[in-house]
Amino acid sequence: MKAVVFDDGLKLVNDYKKPVPQKGEALVRVTLAGICNTDYEITKGYMGYKGILGHEAVGIVEEINDDDKSLLGKRVVAEISYGCKKPDCPYCAQKLYRHCPDRHTLGIWRKDGVFAQYFTMPLETLFEVPDNVPNEQAVFVEPLAAACEITEQLHIKPCDKVIVLGDGKLGLLTAMTLNAQNIDVTLVGKHAEKLNLAKGIKTKLLDDLKIEKIYDVTVEATGSISGFETALALTKPRGVLVLKSTVAATKEFNLAPVVIDEITVLGSRCGQFAPALRLLQSGKVDFKPLISGIYNIDDALEAFEKNKEKSTVKILLKFD
Amino acid sequence: MKAVVFDDGLKLVNDYKKPVPQKGEALVRVTLAGICNTDYEITKGYMGYKGILGHEAVGIVEEINDDDKSLLGKRVVAEISYGCKKPDCPYCAQKLYRHCPDRHTLGIWRKDGVFAQYFTMPLETLFEVPDNVPNEQAVFVEPLAAACEITEQLHIKPCDKVIVLGDGKLGLLTAMTLNAQNIDVTLVGKHAEKLNLAKGIKTKLLDDLKIEKIYDVTVEATGSISGFETALALTKPRGVLVLKSTVAATKEFNLAPVVIDEITVLGSRCGQFAPALRLLQSGKVDFKPLISGIYNIDDALEAFEKNKEKSTVKILLKFD
Repeated sequence: MKAVVFDDGLKLVNDYKKPVPQKGEALVRVTLAGICNTDYEITKGYMGYKGILGHEAVGIVEEINDDDKSLLGKRVVAEISYGCKKPDCPYCAQKLYRHCPDRHTLGIWRKDGVFAQYFTMPLETLFEVPDNVPNEQAVFVEPLAAACEITEQLHIKPCDKVIVLGDGKLGLLTAMTLNAQNIDVTLVGKHAEKLNLAKGIKTKLLDDLKIEKIYDVTVEATGSISGFETALALTKPRGVLVLKSTVAATKEFNLAPVVIDEITVLGSRCGQFAPALRLLQSGKVDFKPLISGIYNIDDALEAFEKNKEKSTVKILLKFD
Repeated sequence: MKAVVFDDGLKLVNDYKKPVPQKGEALVRVTLAGICNTDYEITKGYMGYKGILGHEAVGIVEEINDDDKSLLGKRVVAEISYGCKKPDCPYCAQKLYRHCPDRHTLGIWRKDGVFAQYFTMPLETLFEVPDNVPNEQAVFVEPLAAACEITEQLHIKPCDKVIVLGDGKLGLLTAMTLNAQNIDVTLVGKHAEKLNLAKGIKTKLLDDLKIEKIYDVTVEATGSISGFETALALTKPRGVLVLKSTVAATKEFNLAPVVIDEITVLGSRCGQFAPALRLLQSGKVDFKPLISGIYNIDDALEAFEKNKEKSTVKILLKFD
């Protein structure tokens, strides 16, 4: 099968071995997949991962190696991690597979990803996509779930002032998702044309933003440590700074302001799919404006190049 | 009056002007004071502070510039910050004077400290010391309140596993205070003789500690960023790392683990005095073993030198 593989370099392989579903797993034929910044970070060495890239996809279940065939032929999305499922694993017991110490994660850690014609995943990670959600929206379910994770971890009150830093994919999606939950959110970035994609949301150019400690909740989604420092300068004493970006870079950095202002820095990663699918089904979010291009799998390397361009938001890969 | 002043260098001044209490303030004659690591940090440039040092003291109210004379002649301790008291300040309204943007802080920020024969503070910051609490315990109320602040900010459950890193003043006090609240705490440090001061508490030498992500709550009290990194490596996914130390130093540092394991980093600073005085009154804590020496104010510079020695825990200054 065709697959986008990272192994020192990034390459398109045409004869990658088609995976065989193990007991309890399904084989999914990929329809549409999305490129995430994590994929790009991996090509720069993040996590030391080698194999098929990708963890955002929608597809059709073609085969199931289990007595429960209920998902056969269904259109599905897959949560990105599966766990050990041992009876004494507290993370697997709570379906927090992404925190299981013995986890596997699609295209990131010990598991081939979804930038291929087929992938396999355990049945418990698969969710059927509601009929009224087109593939071009369903493919956003993983980053949408990551945005929903913020309100899973943190009680944001209706009168709280929230600011999201970063007008890339992550920032746009996060601001749109918080806004869809009636949260008072402002999105800040450096690019007017990207901020304009966030329809119906308060936006501000970073240069026009007054830096003062007035926000109850700040969300760092720039992927840079200078973004973290700006977020810190905007968070009011005893407020919460949600750290959404995984950054591989390191930088000199003073933690004293976190202590002095008693800031809570809340690391926030992936989320569960049920609330994300509910938001998609309700039509409260529309991510189509974020799509900068849809490339055929045969043009995957070109798609990755396009993804690097500053003006690009979301690039999708289609499999015909 | 005699006063320990930092102004580029550290010096003992014998003819410092005795302060005059302003409207709403009391004049306190200092009996006993404690040297904190923050005092030492200030002599290295922290906060850019110049003036009388010190923020931990017990003393007698000698004069009150207010109609309310109820504290006159009483033995008191003083919370270290006072705020603007403007009607629209949310921090002053909650008595969180330490977070008021227009605050003054004893010996740290825009307010002469307590390493002097006299200091003044507004009445609302003063607390009478219960009769059964000797000066040698009462002088610990400020760092004790800072330790109590952890359970003010964070719900630590009775079955949570808690680990405190650092066997200096801050770590010892924090572990003793958590233990006094029936929390399952382990104190870790590099010095067996300091760990032995924490009577009745589980202790471990850092070299003997297995580094694994099993603690619900870790407390960083080493004052070093390597301590922060160790704390991160001990905090279980979705656990809480309480950052207690203000460190002026900076170091290269990767924040990705905070995101990947969805760690909450909780900055924690000073606390309110009422619960601290209640603990002292109950006798559930005994800090006398932490006293490494009591120096007369005339020997304050020698006391500061002693405070720098690795084997020293708490140094007190007395005023006869």
